[in-house]
Amino acid sequence: MTERLEQQITFLNEACKLKSVVRATELCDNSRYENSAEHSWHLTLYALVLADHAKPGVDINRVIKMLILHDLVEIDAGDNPIFGDHDPAAMEAQEQIAADRIFGLLPNNLGSDLRAIWEEFEAAQTPSAQFAKSLDRFQPPMQNLQSGGGSWIDYNVTQEMIEERVGRKISVGAPALWTYAQKKITAFFAARANK
Amino acid sequence: MTERLEQQITFLNEACKLKSVVRATELCDNSRYENSAEHSWHLTLYALVLADHAKPGVDINRVIKMLILHDLVEIDAGDNPIFGDHDPAAMEAQEQIAADRIFGLLPNNLGSDLRAIWEEFEAAQTPSAQFAKSLDRFQPPMQNLQSGGGSWIDYNVTQEMIEERVGRKISVGAPALWTYAQKKITAFFAARANK
Repeated sequence: MTERLEQQITFLNEACKLKSVVRATELCDNSRYENSAEHSWHLTLYALVLADHAKPGVDINRVIKMLILHDLVEIDAGDNPIFGDHDPAAMEAQEQIAADRIFGLLPNNLGSDLRAIWEEFEAAQTPSAQFAKSLDRFQPPMQNLQSGGGSWIDYNVTQEMIEERVGRKISVGAPALWTYAQKKITAFFAARANK
Repeated sequence: MTERLEQQITFLNEACKLKSVVRATELCDNSRYENSAEHSWHLTLYALVLADHAKPGVDINRVIKMLILHDLVEIDAGDNPIFGDHDPAAMEAQEQIAADRIFGLLPNNLGSDLRAIWEEFEAAQTPSAQFAKSLDRFQPPMQNLQSGGGSWIDYNVTQEMIEERVGRKISVGAPALWTYAQKKITAFFAARANK
């Protein structure tokens, strides 16, 4: 039992590093960039609060577990901003190597159980994974709308780019949330154009 | 539906402020103080990973929900460090006022559902709440052991104070975790005494 617990604590100490992975999104009050640990917490709260916008077949407890785990691989692989340039195949390969190492710190059965939850999220095929992915795309625009544009300004993002890289993905798992976001985003860009 | 969603988003935007509530605990690498949002995320991961140390009758999905919500009241009431001086009755009163305001941002039924989860955590009577409370006391010492002492140094904390304010509470919901922590803490203070 003690060796098992040592492995569990080693993993939890390693996970602490996610608090130092900085994302492209700014906090709502524009005071600094968000890190991947607090982003992950915020997403679990999104899941709790927005569960009524999920499609039938979504297991919200599993969604929450996915969101707790979804960014752990960034400890090794780093965060890839949605509007940045990166090669998806290279990123996926890096994340698989990261998952080998990080989930590999855990006792065997537990490591494979948690990795399976992460793999389900990554594959985005089940209703739960699709809802989790949609929330992961929905939170940054909500935060950008609060902070005066955030990563949209930093990356010279147009409304068309948001439709393409964000809107299509939110629509898959949470169409009502995209309908809402789209209106707000349209108003934001219209106001900027009129300045 | 739109008004309901507006209320949900208003609450989620307000929750963003938890990322700016600074705690007394330092990150594992000693680089800065932890905030309550990333602390909450780390605790949900503790629950996922350490579920096998919970007593019978613990619902781990409910534990995770408690941990997502447990510090939201700090947006108004602030964080009260375990080894700081504060009046528990005054703190509880402040937190109730904070809960009125913050959960009150949500649509009625949802706000009362989430507040009930938070109240269950605060009351610490159910097995799930006791396990969640134990994790909330177990994570800071694990982090202090990594960061070279952290809040124990800042607050001139003795091993006896840890036994009293932390150990007794961890023991209630997760006795095996306190047995583990106690050994590590004893070794930490012995090494400091021999310096």
